[in-house]
Amino acid sequence: MQNFSYRNPTKIIFGEGQIAMLDAEVPRNARVLVTSGGGSIKSNGVLDQVKAALGQRTWFLFSGIEPNPTYETLMEAVAMARENNIDYLLAVGGGSVIDGTKFIAAAIKFDGEPWDILSKKAPVHDAMPFGSVLTLPATGSEMNNGSVVSYRAKGDKLFFTSEATYPLFSVLDPTTTYSLPPKQIANGVVDAFVPVIEQYLTYPADAKVQDRFAEGLLITLSEVGPQALAEPHNYAVRANLMWTATLALNGLIGAGVPQDWATHMLGHELTALHGLDHAQTLAILLPAVMSVRREQKRAKLLQYAERVWKLTEGSEEERITAAITATRSFFERMTVATRLRDYQITGDSIDKLIAKLEEHGMTALGEHGDITPQVSREVYQHAL
Amino acid sequence: MQNFSYRNPTKIIFGEGQIAMLDAEVPRNARVLVTSGGGSIKSNGVLDQVKAALGQRTWFLFSGIEPNPTYETLMEAVAMARENNIDYLLAVGGGSVIDGTKFIAAAIKFDGEPWDILSKKAPVHDAMPFGSVLTLPATGSEMNNGSVVSYRAKGDKLFFTSEATYPLFSVLDPTTTYSLPPKQIANGVVDAFVPVIEQYLTYPADAKVQDRFAEGLLITLSEVGPQALAEPHNYAVRANLMWTATLALNGLIGAGVPQDWATHMLGHELTALHGLDHAQTLAILLPAVMSVRREQKRAKLLQYAERVWKLTEGSEEERITAAITATRSFFERMTVATRLRDYQITGDSIDKLIAKLEEHGMTALGEHGDITPQVSREVYQHAL
Repeated sequence: MQNFSYRNPTKIIFGEGQIAMLDAEVPRNARVLVTSGGGSIKSNGVLDQVKAALGQRTWFLFSGIEPNPTYETLMEAVAMARENNIDYLLAVGGGSVIDGTKFIAAAIKFDGEPWDILSKKAPVHDAMPFGSVLTLPATGSEMNNGSVVSYRAKGDKLFFTSEATYPLFSVLDPTTTYSLPPKQIANGVVDAFVPVIEQYLTYPADAKVQDRFAEGLLITLSEVGPQALAEPHNYAVRANLMWTATLALNGLIGAGVPQDWATHMLGHELTALHGLDHAQTLAILLPAVMSVRREQKRAKLLQYAERVWKLTEGSEEERITAAITATRSFFERMTVATRLRDYQITGDSIDKLIAKLEEHGMTALGEHGDITPQVSREVYQHAL
Repeated sequence: MQNFSYRNPTKIIFGEGQIAMLDAEVPRNARVLVTSGGGSIKSNGVLDQVKAALGQRTWFLFSGIEPNPTYETLMEAVAMARENNIDYLLAVGGGSVIDGTKFIAAAIKFDGEPWDILSKKAPVHDAMPFGSVLTLPATGSEMNNGSVVSYRAKGDKLFFTSEATYPLFSVLDPTTTYSLPPKQIANGVVDAFVPVIEQYLTYPADAKVQDRFAEGLLITLSEVGPQALAEPHNYAVRANLMWTATLALNGLIGAGVPQDWATHMLGHELTALHGLDHAQTLAILLPAVMSVRREQKRAKLLQYAERVWKLTEGSEEERITAAITATRSFFERMTVATRLRDYQITGDSIDKLIAKLEEHGMTALGEHGDITPQVSREVYQHAL
């Protein structure tokens, strides 16, 4: 096991009807800015529950935080918060709304140009307190301190974290997910599955618990993912999906183990160049990464085959191939296509994708830092 | 899944050499009371590492916190802290030292008679900040807010928790466990294994992740427990044991699921009456609880048999019996005997044990609250 430091102070309030608990979490005298995405929280009753729980508190609504939240939009929220002497933020939505709210919280207290937080990794020492009401199980933002923000005018999509940007609390009510479109559930399952793999499928590191926990999350997703599509109102299924997605990226399973975020990094370029959903890029690239790196990841691929997919028959090569196939089949069963050609992307794009990776300094990816642009090229080619 | 609230703010600093990180965690101007048990931290070099890390800070040592820490001893520490204007506590030891330090931290700030915190469940709103250096993997106290304290003069052993008594941080250096006597390692493995069972072996509650995590901890303990006895200086084994024991009782696997703490409660009476180690009582009583409650726990016993012990052959009854036998064999392989007769305790004690259980209000135990004194009697009889 590698040395590690782990801390996660976010309080999770989980279950049907728990939005009412906002009344116990948000200070009585707070001036609250509720942040949200599109109009779904108005139509599905979530905003009404938030309103009821906030009661007599003074609150304002900032809606319109987009998927892949932009600096431009978020700075409008910062201005609105300042104009109205806001002292507390409440994100109501999915990962994009929560990511965006982390940036708003940091930007309000930041001395200088807030984009520096992302572009220059300017340290964030303070942030406005905030909580969240999660409505889309996917990214884990509700229980971590990371945030991805895009600058539309510059075409940048960048990441920051800070000890000050953990949500104070997150309310997870599985019934809020009942009305989600199937595509968002499908993407959410892939968004949760792939980061678990990225914290797991590297090389053996004598981290038995982290491995077992990761495998438990993967098995659970493989079970509840298809059920969540088939039975949108099955509470137990949605509850398991929601809690699993949160635990997928809250720091716990990644503590003390090597990690390989190549799938994410190569995926960001696909989104930037072709506008694919984040989950689509992950579903395309993960099987390709597994295939191209099957030698380097051999021991963990065999463990993954046996423990997650119960593949114990045949030679090592056959089991590894079967595990990669099972992964691809799972994504396709979730209705997320896994080949670039499924999205009308051809080999003509690969030079551009590699150039962008190099421009962004992504030239030594993977758990060994040896996924060079040449290896990334093989991955993209394999994904055609 | 049941509704739940979960939060755990303790920072874990894990790995060889990490005691030096105290320098980054303890405030520069703190006046520190280091609390400890017997002399082992002096002989094994841990105290020297603590000294070096604290550097120029002003600190005092309070040693002598006993296993099953007593109010009498802990109040001496409170007096010493007050005399020396202490404003920070650092527990260096195992679960008893950390439990005791939680009480010291609460008692110093408590307005009134501190024993009321335990005897009257007087709420603890404030506590002195404290961290810990763990030297014995067992109870999980290093990452939870619970504390058990005994009042020697009254013969009471009581429990309290408070949001204010989480350690700010805990340093877990597996090499500090190398010099532990085998008996403490053996007891520690049982002390970690049984609470996981108590948060798991009830009835199916549609909590897939909690189940998988619990099973992961149990499998890991079944693997590393005997290795830890056989190879005291195997870093990977001790590291896995240490992190597993912490995760066994930090709230995570118990969130959203039914629990059955009957084994613990019946065990406390055995310790009180016969002076058995806590782990010994658990090793005796868990197989008996499993046997007496095999019908009520049937579904989870079958799941436990299959997933933890890979028992898939034979009838349901045979698999359940085999799982109970496997549990008993595991404890015995850990050198912890599992029958009352192994400790020279006979059926003559049972009336006294039941009377004490009734006196302490333990008349409706288990996940259904239906472990009455009559059922507890069956458990003790089964354990003979």
